[in-house]
Amino acid sequence: MKAASTLKRFFPILEWGAAYNSRAFVSDITAAIIVTVMLIPQSLAYAMLADLPPEVGLYASMLPLVLYAIFGTGRALAVGPVAVISLMTAAAISHAAPGSGIGYVEAAMVLALLSGLMLLVMGLMRLGFLVNFLSHPVISGFIVASSILIAVSQFKYILGITSSGSTLIELIESLSAQIGKTNVPTLIIGTASMAALFSTRSRLKKMLLSIGVSETWAGPLAKGGPVAVVIITTLITAVWHLDQSGVPVVGQVPVGLPSVTVPHLDMALITHMASSAFLISLIGFVSSISVAQTLAAKRRQRVDPDQELVALGIANIGAGVTGGYPITGGFARSVVNFDAGAETPAAGAFTAIGIAVATIFLTPLLYFLPKATLAATIIVAVLSLIDGKVLLHTWRYSKRDFAATATTIVVTLIAGVELGLIAGVVLSIVLHLYRTSKPHCAIVGIVPGTEHFRNILRHNVLTNDTVLTLRVDESLYFANARFLEDKVYDLVSANKALKHVVLMCPAVNEIDASALESLEEINSRLKTSGVTFHLSEVKGPVMDRLERSSLLQHLTGKVFLSQYKAIEELAPDLARTAQAAE
Amino acid sequence: MKAASTLKRFFPILEWGAAYNSRAFVSDITAAIIVTVMLIPQSLAYAMLADLPPEVGLYASMLPLVLYAIFGTGRALAVGPVAVISLMTAAAISHAAPGSGIGYVEAAMVLALLSGLMLLVMGLMRLGFLVNFLSHPVISGFIVASSILIAVSQFKYILGITSSGSTLIELIESLSAQIGKTNVPTLIIGTASMAALFSTRSRLKKMLLSIGVSETWAGPLAKGGPVAVVIITTLITAVWHLDQSGVPVVGQVPVGLPSVTVPHLDMALITHMASSAFLISLIGFVSSISVAQTLAAKRRQRVDPDQELVALGIANIGAGVTGGYPITGGFARSVVNFDAGAETPAAGAFTAIGIAVATIFLTPLLYFLPKATLAATIIVAVLSLIDGKVLLHTWRYSKRDFAATATTIVVTLIAGVELGLIAGVVLSIVLHLYRTSKPHCAIVGIVPGTEHFRNILRHNVLTNDTVLTLRVDESLYFANARFLEDKVYDLVSANKALKHVVLMCPAVNEIDASALESLEEINSRLKTSGVTFHLSEVKGPVMDRLERSSLLQHLTGKVFLSQYKAIEELAPDLARTAQAAE
Repeated sequence: MKAASTLKRFFPILEWGAAYNSRAFVSDITAAIIVTVMLIPQSLAYAMLADLPPEVGLYASMLPLVLYAIFGTGRALAVGPVAVISLMTAAAISHAAPGSGIGYVEAAMVLALLSGLMLLVMGLMRLGFLVNFLSHPVISGFIVASSILIAVSQFKYILGITSSGSTLIELIESLSAQIGKTNVPTLIIGTASMAALFSTRSRLKKMLLSIGVSETWAGPLAKGGPVAVVIITTLITAVWHLDQSGVPVVGQVPVGLPSVTVPHLDMALITHMASSAFLISLIGFVSSISVAQTLAAKRRQRVDPDQELVALGIANIGAGVTGGYPITGGFARSVVNFDAGAETPAAGAFTAIGIAVATIFLTPLLYFLPKATLAATIIVAVLSLIDGKVLLHTWRYSKRDFAATATTIVVTLIAGVELGLIAGVVLSIVLHLYRTSKPHCAIVGIVPGTEHFRNILRHNVLTNDTVLTLRVDESLYFANARFLEDKVYDLVSANKALKHVVLMCPAVNEIDASALESLEEINSRLKTSGVTFHLSEVKGPVMDRLERSSLLQHLTGKVFLSQYKAIEELAPDLARTAQAAE
Repeated sequence: MKAASTLKRFFPILEWGAAYNSRAFVSDITAAIIVTVMLIPQSLAYAMLADLPPEVGLYASMLPLVLYAIFGTGRALAVGPVAVISLMTAAAISHAAPGSGIGYVEAAMVLALLSGLMLLVMGLMRLGFLVNFLSHPVISGFIVASSILIAVSQFKYILGITSSGSTLIELIESLSAQIGKTNVPTLIIGTASMAALFSTRSRLKKMLLSIGVSETWAGPLAKGGPVAVVIITTLITAVWHLDQSGVPVVGQVPVGLPSVTVPHLDMALITHMASSAFLISLIGFVSSISVAQTLAAKRRQRVDPDQELVALGIANIGAGVTGGYPITGGFARSVVNFDAGAETPAAGAFTAIGIAVATIFLTPLLYFLPKATLAATIIVAVLSLIDGKVLLHTWRYSKRDFAATATTIVVTLIAGVELGLIAGVVLSIVLHLYRTSKPHCAIVGIVPGTEHFRNILRHNVLTNDTVLTLRVDESLYFANARFLEDKVYDLVSANKALKHVVLMCPAVNEIDASALESLEEINSRLKTSGVTFHLSEVKGPVMDRLERSSLLQHLTGKVFLSQYKAIEELAPDLARTAQAAE
């Protein structure tokens, strides 16, 4: 019984597969057809963005989808190449491949393999919490900055020129140096494609609804705008032989399926790309899990984050051994998949079959597809990710969180995607430690007529000169241990009449070894000053742990169950006065 | 008035100087004489440990002490060269100096200058919280490991051989390769010195007390053991001309005071040593401030951590421009200074004069001082820092904190001081984020006959199927935002009858932008599942901030002032049953 449930945990296909029926099959196959049509130009475009040949995008959309269907828990999640990961792949292979004598394609395969192994290990060791390092302000800043980088990097295809660079400055310098060589037919195709895509994105669905297409179909069909643009520009280019007028086209794409080959695992290359693979794994997982959870919630289904790590890990390993590059769950295509009625991950496997069929039979038709059209689909897709409102909201909500967003954006733009992410993560952690290093704490007094204690600065409460009660509203750990020492110490040196200090701990959820040391230190320093140190309202689990230390033996005072009991014993007059006050 | 108090903040000498009288003068000068005698062999020994000529240790004990007397707030703190910082200096200059064509002495000066500037900037910008990154388990692990490294590195002097290395393995390999060349007279002096130092350390004070020396004097005099050993071994070496039998001696020490010179500031060298200087600054400040606070507490005096950063910064800059190397407050000498009656930082300035006088008149007498004796004083001093009990206590108190200690020890021993510190700091932060990434939270129900709510797993409470209340006992921030999403989501998908989810927040001290996003996400996902989302018992400052976001407009439910009010409205039957139960 236990073995069966473990098996189902690792192979979710056993769970939904057992209940699979013809109704689900029809839904899944319908969704798969729509997603396939959408995924073909996307795969080509994202491969181009990753500086890889177009077929690599198609290969990354086959085996990984089948593997995710077996191991994934997101029922409607559609995996494959996505924009941000493609940009990160381009950056990773550009500084890894040249020196090592290894080609871009092989480097990308190694990257997928590494990233897949990392995700798999994280999933098996339940290290999913590592993605928590990517705070929301960092992710949103990163999406904005990388979208800008992506859009700018694709402009060379719209202009029909060659340029390069991985930071905003390099890209703009390179573009402006080459802009004189702009190819006019390419520019026309590119801008027309962008205009068409922008308008279909915003208006096609309404148009379809107005001509009587049902709501169920209008949404997915409207997402087919890019396909229409691809077909039209390909036909125009083919008919007028624009490739001979200097319009760069996709050209020959190898026909047939990829073979299974493990890339050459060069140790130097692996060391060089390990950090890139790690960042790609984190970003890939974060975007994928959030899409999966959003869609699952709509049907009250459950996504298992650890199993998702395993599934994405295996899918990426699949990409790495079949000539692909790193993949993850895509937002737009998953929504299309969901809206088109996909009920199980089988829809993904059917999509993979669709892509395979297309790779075998349709690639010759892609010969005349202009690169400018693909660039236009990328630019339109990523510009929708730049959401100024999110930045504004973060600014309004918290200047500190906004600082993390702004840093991520600026560093990503001027120093590239990897340094940008790292800078954002480091700053988030530093700011968090800074915030908790000065926890909210208050000197409290007793509310007359009650047994309650409140901040002396905000309430009309009673205190006396011999007992000082400090309430700390935060767990005590290494980042704030010293603050507490300083605080207690300042209060004691300012009040010569003091005999007792009580630390009131109702909001202390943890005391780590550093804070324990600080409490020992406070206790012994107060002892040398002739002041007794007490604790009150210590939570159960915290008390259990303190009993394993020697603090309680050294403590000059007591641990009181309630602050009122402390006052009753240490300042009976004060307790009486407070009760008489009612 | 305000200007005067600001002036006094930055020049604490104005505060205590105004009340200076002849009584304080006598106390300070007495303490200064004792500390001077103790500091001379220490300065020479620590300079040797830092791979620097002996006079550098003396120079580091002059101007820096005067500067600390002007700017420092620790009344009895004695600054100068210390063991751990000397070891870190040796590591920093060994990998910085050779390639650059710059000598060790100049590199050490640059290091002191850099470290001083960093401390000064940290003090002026009130960045003292940065030292919080060094958790107690990391510091204690670091002290243990660096003490072992120091003791092993000094063994070559006890044996009279030459060896090198900066990790335990390198040191041991180098020692065992050379052990055949041991110089017997040196070995005898070294081991006899160690034996003498160990026994005076443990028994001299008792002996002095038993022969009628008063308690006030016995303590400081017992600390003079090293001086006696220095004098005796120097005399023996001089009389029997043991330097001609291969006993390495201190030799010629330049007579006279150091001149003020700014070292050549080579940009490559600065870049290379910046991280070493930063780590030295942190470790130096942490050890110094804790000594200062411990001593100040005994007299109910106050130490200002930000001003201490300024003072140590200026003192280190002073060391950097007068041929010295990084310094900080030393534990042993400060205790001697305090016990000998030092009342103000003037004692430090008098010590500096003492060292200057010694440098002018006594250095010729140090010619025959065996290096083995200095090594013995270092070994005996650092071995007392290795405290197995601290490790045992940490192990017992928290396995997670122990992991940080153990990692710091192992990495320091096998990869050196800098990587050891960095590994410990990174692991502490990761473990902290891991711990808070899974905060304690409980589903709560109402206690019959009351308006209180308690954990359903621990108490006999009432609940119903349509309302679920989750209480989270931790601030919500990026490390646990996703956990909350997963948690709520699991609970909702497990209970199909659910209509309301209430998040009870009495222990939530902060909601950052990531957690806000998660709440928005939870709200909108629950909405698609037809479940209403409410908050209760949100603290004032947290609520103030939430009002600046759009969560409250999107919220499908309400924010209740108390959890009881939530139940009264969402499950009136349950509230009635609970009240009737009394």
